[in-house]
Amino acid sequence: MNQVSYTQRNCTDQQKIETFLVQERTGVLGMVSDTFPYAVPVNYVWHNGSVYFHGMGSGKKETILSQNPLVCFTIHKEQGTVTDPVPCHADTAYLSVMIFGKAEKVTDPEETAMALQKALDKFMPNYYSHPLTSTLIEKYRSSMDGNAVSVYRITPQEMTAKENSVESGQLFTS
Amino acid sequence: MNQVSYTQRNCTDQQKIETFLVQERTGVLGMVSDTFPYAVPVNYVWHNGSVYFHGMGSGKKETILSQNPLVCFTIHKEQGTVTDPVPCHADTAYLSVMIFGKAEKVTDPEETAMALQKALDKFMPNYYSHPLTSTLIEKYRSSMDGNAVSVYRITPQEMTAKENSVESGQLFTS
Repeated sequence: MNQVSYTQRNCTDQQKIETFLVQERTGVLGMVSDTFPYAVPVNYVWHNGSVYFHGMGSGKKETILSQNPLVCFTIHKEQGTVTDPVPCHADTAYLSVMIFGKAEKVTDPEETAMALQKALDKFMPNYYSHPLTSTLIEKYRSSMDGNAVSVYRITPQEMTAKENSVESGQLFTS
Repeated sequence: MNQVSYTQRNCTDQQKIETFLVQERTGVLGMVSDTFPYAVPVNYVWHNGSVYFHGMGSGKKETILSQNPLVCFTIHKEQGTVTDPVPCHADTAYLSVMIFGKAEKVTDPEETAMALQKALDKFMPNYYSHPLTSTLIEKYRSSMDGNAVSVYRITPQEMTAKENSVESGQLFTS
C-alpha cells in the first residue's frame, strides 16, 4: 500500500535508516481527527525498533489517539536543492522515513521510565546526575492532578524510507 | 476545534508568523488515506496568504488528495531543548504553524507558472536567467506523458501557531 512511487528513491540501507532515526530529534505525527487530519511535531526517541514520544495527558493528540490510534510518523531531513539547467529536473536532496503503525499508550511504569530516561539522555545528555525511576515518575504523575505525562510507543507495521542523495549538480541551501 | 491546549503558547504575532512561513522550506502535508494517515514532507511556497506545493501527477499524494483533499499542513522549527532542574519541566524551544484547509489542484496556467516561478525564486535564487512562462510549462506537461507536475494551493480555513521561546535556562542542541 505504501510503496514509494519512484522506486529508485527507496532507501534500503538499514544501517543508514537506523542511524538517521537515532540522530534526528523531531518527527511529525500524522493522525486522523473527526474532520481535518492533524499533523503535530513531537520530539521522539527511537529505541529497540520502536518510536517513543510523550506529551501532556490532557492534550489534543491524546484525545485523537484515544479515538483513532493509527498514525503515520514521518521523520525528514532536507539537505538543500539540487539544481539542474532544466527547471523541471531540479530537485530536493533529502532523507525521509515514514512509519505506519498504532500509537499505543505505555502503561508499564518501567517502560515509561525507560522511555523518558532515553529522552533525557538524547535531548539533555549528562544534564541530570540521577536517573529517572518509575517511583519518581509516579510521584510526578500523582502530583500533577491528572495532567501528567503520557508516553506512547509506535511499533512499525510498515516503514518506508526515501532519499535523494546529492551526487551531482550544485546544492542550494537557504 | 483546533485550539491550542496551552493557550499561553499561542503565537499571535502575525508578522512573526508571516516571516516564518516565508522563510521555512519544508512542511509536512498530513492527509487521510483509506487506512493509515499519510504525512509527507514537501517543499512549499507561502504566497499571498496561501501555501503552494507541487509534485508529480502520478504520485501517492495525488491519489489521496483526489479522494480526500482536506489536509493539515504543518511547518515546524525546533530550536533545541530548554533545560530545567526538574526533569518534567524541561521542554523544547520551537515555533510551529498548522494550517487546515483543502488542497486544491491549480488548473489556471498563469497561476501554475506563478507558483512554480516562486518556488524557483525561493529554492534556487538567481539560478535561471529566464522566467518560467505558462507556455513553457504546458510544453513540459505535454512532453511528460501524463506524468507532469501538479501544483496545489492550500488556502487556510484555520491556522494555529504555537511557540515556546527561549527566555531562560540553558539550551541544548545536538
